[in-house]
Amino acid sequence: MKHLQADIKKLNLFPAFSSGQFGMEKEGLRITKDGHLSLTPHPSVLGNRSFHPYIQTDFSESQLELITSPAPDVAEMYRRMMAIHDVAGRSLATGEAIWPASMPAIIPAESEIPIAKLDDKEDVLYREALAAKYGKAKQLVSGIHYNFELGSEFVEALYQGKGETGCIETFKTSLYLKMAQNFLRYRWVLTYLLGATPIADESFWRNQTHPMEKPQLPVRSIRNSHLGYSNDSHIAVSFESLEKYVSDIERLVANGDFIAEKEFYSPIRFRGSKSVRGLLETGIRYIEIRVFDLNPFAPFGMTKEDMAFVHLFMLYMLWIEELHESDAEASLGHKMNETTALEQPDKPSSYQAEAMTILAGMEKMSAQLALPTYYEEALKQAKEKLVYPEKTLANQLIELIQSENGFISSVTALAEQYEADCLAKPYALRGYTNMELSTQLLLFDAIQKGITAEVIDEHDQFLKLQYHEHIEYVKNANMTSKDQYIAPLIMENKSVTKRILEAAGFHVPAGEEYQEEAVALANYWRYQDKAIVVKPKSTNYGLGISIFKEGPSLEDYTTAIKIAFKEDQAVLVEEYVTGTEYRFFVLDGKVEAIMLRVPANVIGDGKRTITDLVAEKNQDILRGSHHRSPLELIQLGEIEQLMLKEQGYQISSIPQKGEIVYLRENSNVSTGGDSIDKTDEIDVSYKQAAIEMTAALGARVSGVDLIIPDATIPSTKEHPGYAVIEANFNPAMHMHAFPYQGKGRRLTLGILGMLFPELIIKEQP
Amino acid sequence: MKHLQADIKKLNLFPAFSSGQFGMEKEGLRITKDGHLSLTPHPSVLGNRSFHPYIQTDFSESQLELITSPAPDVAEMYRRMMAIHDVAGRSLATGEAIWPASMPAIIPAESEIPIAKLDDKEDVLYREALAAKYGKAKQLVSGIHYNFELGSEFVEALYQGKGETGCIETFKTSLYLKMAQNFLRYRWVLTYLLGATPIADESFWRNQTHPMEKPQLPVRSIRNSHLGYSNDSHIAVSFESLEKYVSDIERLVANGDFIAEKEFYSPIRFRGSKSVRGLLETGIRYIEIRVFDLNPFAPFGMTKEDMAFVHLFMLYMLWIEELHESDAEASLGHKMNETTALEQPDKPSSYQAEAMTILAGMEKMSAQLALPTYYEEALKQAKEKLVYPEKTLANQLIELIQSENGFISSVTALAEQYEADCLAKPYALRGYTNMELSTQLLLFDAIQKGITAEVIDEHDQFLKLQYHEHIEYVKNANMTSKDQYIAPLIMENKSVTKRILEAAGFHVPAGEEYQEEAVALANYWRYQDKAIVVKPKSTNYGLGISIFKEGPSLEDYTTAIKIAFKEDQAVLVEEYVTGTEYRFFVLDGKVEAIMLRVPANVIGDGKRTITDLVAEKNQDILRGSHHRSPLELIQLGEIEQLMLKEQGYQISSIPQKGEIVYLRENSNVSTGGDSIDKTDEIDVSYKQAAIEMTAALGARVSGVDLIIPDATIPSTKEHPGYAVIEANFNPAMHMHAFPYQGKGRRLTLGILGMLFPELIIKEQP
Repeated sequence: MKHLQADIKKLNLFPAFSSGQFGMEKEGLRITKDGHLSLTPHPSVLGNRSFHPYIQTDFSESQLELITSPAPDVAEMYRRMMAIHDVAGRSLATGEAIWPASMPAIIPAESEIPIAKLDDKEDVLYREALAAKYGKAKQLVSGIHYNFELGSEFVEALYQGKGETGCIETFKTSLYLKMAQNFLRYRWVLTYLLGATPIADESFWRNQTHPMEKPQLPVRSIRNSHLGYSNDSHIAVSFESLEKYVSDIERLVANGDFIAEKEFYSPIRFRGSKSVRGLLETGIRYIEIRVFDLNPFAPFGMTKEDMAFVHLFMLYMLWIEELHESDAEASLGHKMNETTALEQPDKPSSYQAEAMTILAGMEKMSAQLALPTYYEEALKQAKEKLVYPEKTLANQLIELIQSENGFISSVTALAEQYEADCLAKPYALRGYTNMELSTQLLLFDAIQKGITAEVIDEHDQFLKLQYHEHIEYVKNANMTSKDQYIAPLIMENKSVTKRILEAAGFHVPAGEEYQEEAVALANYWRYQDKAIVVKPKSTNYGLGISIFKEGPSLEDYTTAIKIAFKEDQAVLVEEYVTGTEYRFFVLDGKVEAIMLRVPANVIGDGKRTITDLVAEKNQDILRGSHHRSPLELIQLGEIEQLMLKEQGYQISSIPQKGEIVYLRENSNVSTGGDSIDKTDEIDVSYKQAAIEMTAALGARVSGVDLIIPDATIPSTKEHPGYAVIEANFNPAMHMHAFPYQGKGRRLTLGILGMLFPELIIKEQP
Repeated sequence: MKHLQADIKKLNLFPAFSSGQFGMEKEGLRITKDGHLSLTPHPSVLGNRSFHPYIQTDFSESQLELITSPAPDVAEMYRRMMAIHDVAGRSLATGEAIWPASMPAIIPAESEIPIAKLDDKEDVLYREALAAKYGKAKQLVSGIHYNFELGSEFVEALYQGKGETGCIETFKTSLYLKMAQNFLRYRWVLTYLLGATPIADESFWRNQTHPMEKPQLPVRSIRNSHLGYSNDSHIAVSFESLEKYVSDIERLVANGDFIAEKEFYSPIRFRGSKSVRGLLETGIRYIEIRVFDLNPFAPFGMTKEDMAFVHLFMLYMLWIEELHESDAEASLGHKMNETTALEQPDKPSSYQAEAMTILAGMEKMSAQLALPTYYEEALKQAKEKLVYPEKTLANQLIELIQSENGFISSVTALAEQYEADCLAKPYALRGYTNMELSTQLLLFDAIQKGITAEVIDEHDQFLKLQYHEHIEYVKNANMTSKDQYIAPLIMENKSVTKRILEAAGFHVPAGEEYQEEAVALANYWRYQDKAIVVKPKSTNYGLGISIFKEGPSLEDYTTAIKIAFKEDQAVLVEEYVTGTEYRFFVLDGKVEAIMLRVPANVIGDGKRTITDLVAEKNQDILRGSHHRSPLELIQLGEIEQLMLKEQGYQISSIPQKGEIVYLRENSNVSTGGDSIDKTDEIDVSYKQAAIEMTAALGARVSGVDLIIPDATIPSTKEHPGYAVIEANFNPAMHMHAFPYQGKGRRLTLGILGMLFPELIIKEQP
């Protein structure tokens, strides 16, 4: 694989060169508050590990393994890891956290370290064999595997542009061989920059059933040294050709050196087929780089910049003209890496000059690739670490340990900080906070339960969900294949909805729509004795609405009609129903949530001003702005001040203790209103009515708005206790999950249950 | 029922008084071109008479009975009759028409007059008994029954306002009793104004198996005289009370005077229950007025104004303070009617003064009711007829007969004219021409097949369809319960559609979407050797599009990207696929139609100018404007003239014989393009692909657009002969039904078949 740079230049493939697919597997131990390994079972809310695509356990029951699906770029891989982390962090038992360092927290005696309780016996037996061979403590050392595949269009264009005669699989294999060979020669650079296991807790050394000499600590990376997570030193697998690689691994399995092929703990591995032999047919599809210590300063194990640096580094291994094909070169690289791993963290690298040359080359290459700006930042950070060894991760960690009273205490503090960040906005899913809240919740639940979730149109809130072969598409969190097309079309049309509900025997406020003022006036006879509301057909914010609670005089009616026609070309005159409006969320034949919305308000304490009370209420973590939170901040703008004025207040007034002061007339959550869950308080007869209405509309998901004068008096067919205002398709779900008062209702789990009835989905406790 | 006017005034019920429900049953004989009774069977395309709600047969197999469902006002009843007429007229065998007069066309010997071939034996036996009793000829005399119910809210408001103590059913009965009693006294007025059976054909008199004296002709109304469609003269049913009415009819059935209750051929009947006895319990729900001769000058049997007049007349019968409760008054009325019916049509009424008083009263009443303007016109026309007897229908018909060579010839000419009008725009359904063409077709088919169809939102193209207990809602003719909600949402999002189709293995033009110019330019490498099209994401009319058939230079690519970004914030770069675009209409797993669209064009004849050729092509009855026709008129505006100029033509140029001159680049039907059906010409492999694509999208109805270079070469999975451009939800159907060239495809029938699989729907032959 020579002259790659010339070929890329000739074929104009610079931007293509940086395309690719990226994936990451990150291990992390569950710990308790005091920095001990948690001995509790894997959280049951995380669904079934026998198929979970995102959250597994590695060696130990307490060792989470977080897995991203293949992403088209580094930023996407990063945000997927962020989201999976959010899910894992929020699924832990109270008081637990994820240990953010590679060397374990305080571990118990080896006999007490739980092996992952997997369904598959083979998997358990494999882990037991590993425990016997390496000791459990070593298996707890956690890290990151980084999977990288060159862009297929790039490979194809290069293959064709070079006029290769062999098959494309062979060509691709030659690319990855070169990349791996050069990597093995230069990987010490990554150990220097990203090594982050300078020391370990005493419990780690103490627990060695397979004793090893404790080196002079601190070092750059225990894990990347011979003391770390590696095969015995006599194990040798050639990287000189794919054929040798395959036959060496197969030999080691055959002669019992390896329990299985996957026991090959190489810093880099070839991937693309279930067995290594398969690679000879398919060619190498991607590589797996396994050298990364967890970065304790990165909440998700590795920073986006470091992910970008690794990408660039691997590209550079292919880019350079140098060839380090022989296993002897790999051995040299191994030795340089061992030296680097065991260097003191605050000392410069023994091979600084070589690293400077490599970084300069990477910079030069990078400049031609039209990359996002965080790549530039990545190179800058690496250069700084090279020049200033005190800035390496290993040394930074040592400094923290020294200032913060030891390894366990300082890393536990980080773990708790990350866990607190993760719980801070329980309604949002980091990485996807630009999407609708309900979609974030659905994504969260899908990831938690192990349903493969893919955002196929971010702006359009379009998800693809998959469980085994079963695929479902979802838009805006509850628009699915389970509803008939006509149902939302009916609900969208308020007058059609009314007609259908009325015909089905439900109590719809009687009313007429008028296009002409004269006709509306001629119909006065219909309303003269009735409580009515006159309103423009498509009004908002109450403009042009008149309410007559006792039947209007002809004169008043005439005025009301004229006012309404000023606002719209069509006017509705409807029966006025007094009572409280509730939203019934009907899902698949059940009322899963009932919500009362109350206008923005504060309750006086006899001491503080309205301004202070509002400020205090706005402290609620559920309150935010621009629909990024389940509740909105209460404003003190013109409308609110006018409303106060009408009640004889100013913002500086001090309401009586217990007095409720409303700041708005409308009860919308979007203008600071409170949402109050009433699911368990409303008589079952109303729930039944809402369920039957939804059925009459042919819908499986609907938000039915009922006005109820007294929800404690049962409703009957003859004397309905409600009037149905409207039925909403695509009803909001996040407000039910995080109400201001009352129990949250996780409707998104219900949606998943409807979509995937074959998967029993348990409510979070 | 006294003081009604005062009550209405006191309760302010003037406009309410004119509310009500209206229905009509209209008989009409099928005839052949030469004015003979048609002896063919009831058209099979009209579905099954055992349940048909709109089109039945009355006594004879050749006697159509057209039935409107209850309508909320006269205008609505009128348009429903119009639509049902359109359906009936277009369902006749070629050469047949509907006889527009009450007295029959030329009829054969009685033995040859076919009795309706109904499934129910009872129904056939009843007709045979009638034939024996009255003779078949008399049973062929056709007319209109007009059903009228007072507005229920009016009745209720009046009932409550008057503080009635009895039950509301009794109150309602008393209203209808008064209405009927006064009607029987004054019905001669309707006979005078609307009587339209002045003479009959000789075959009618000749055919009397039950001979009757032929009166001095012409008269006003044979049918409303004792010679018409009435019971024997000794039959007497009292209208003095409902109890007497019921017991009289039951007695007549019991003693054999009536074969069944329905044989009571009264000018007015009480309705609302299956048996007359049931009326005693339910009260009278509505009345049926049976005196109306077909108006041969009205294409649908009665003008809207006359329908309004009848409404007013019936209201007036209730309005007036007069009571004519006794059967003696009814007898007086009967005599006056007989006199009127047998008067010479061009002579003034014997009771003109009484009629003038009634009309004046009706005018006065009407002025208080806030009625549509055609009511005013109705009164005006009635007054004219009263003053000028030559303007009555009977006399108008006599005048026509005299000027046009006799009864048969002149009425046949009218029948043919109406039939021609009905066939003139086969794509439109009169009464509903403001709705979308596809909805008009679906309504047509539903009416034809006997599916109850109700427009529930006209502007929104919302229909309710019902067959027995099975209800389906349809929007825009093919948005139904049979599609999943998510399917149209997928199709609406072009990029999601592409992703899904591509993942399912279909050939989608490769391509990317760019939000940034720099990124688009950096991706030049992808396209340098490929045929591509660069286009703004949401362009129309070809603005900002560049096509490179052989792979662009970097310079040209850069220019194209910059141009496209001037038009939109997102730009698509896609594989350019050459070939012809076809629309595949997939319905329920089948390709029901394939259409090719060709840009607006004319074909030269070596003689005429382009202007002349366009004018000729625009003669096609399928061409119209504003989407009111399946094809649009070809324009000769700026765009067309520019296109001509580019080809070296002007509108005055004379193209060579056989030369095709295009007037547009785009092939849209909306800009004068031609639609050409290709359903039977495209290789089945493409149909299979379109079916599978629709399945992959989870849709049952889709318009799949494929580009095919050569549709005669089969497409295979390995070498797809197509590229799929998009899949459309709610695809247009009318253009397939009425193509410019090729066979029409009645997709709306397929939609009905999908919605009502239990109803076997046959394609029109």
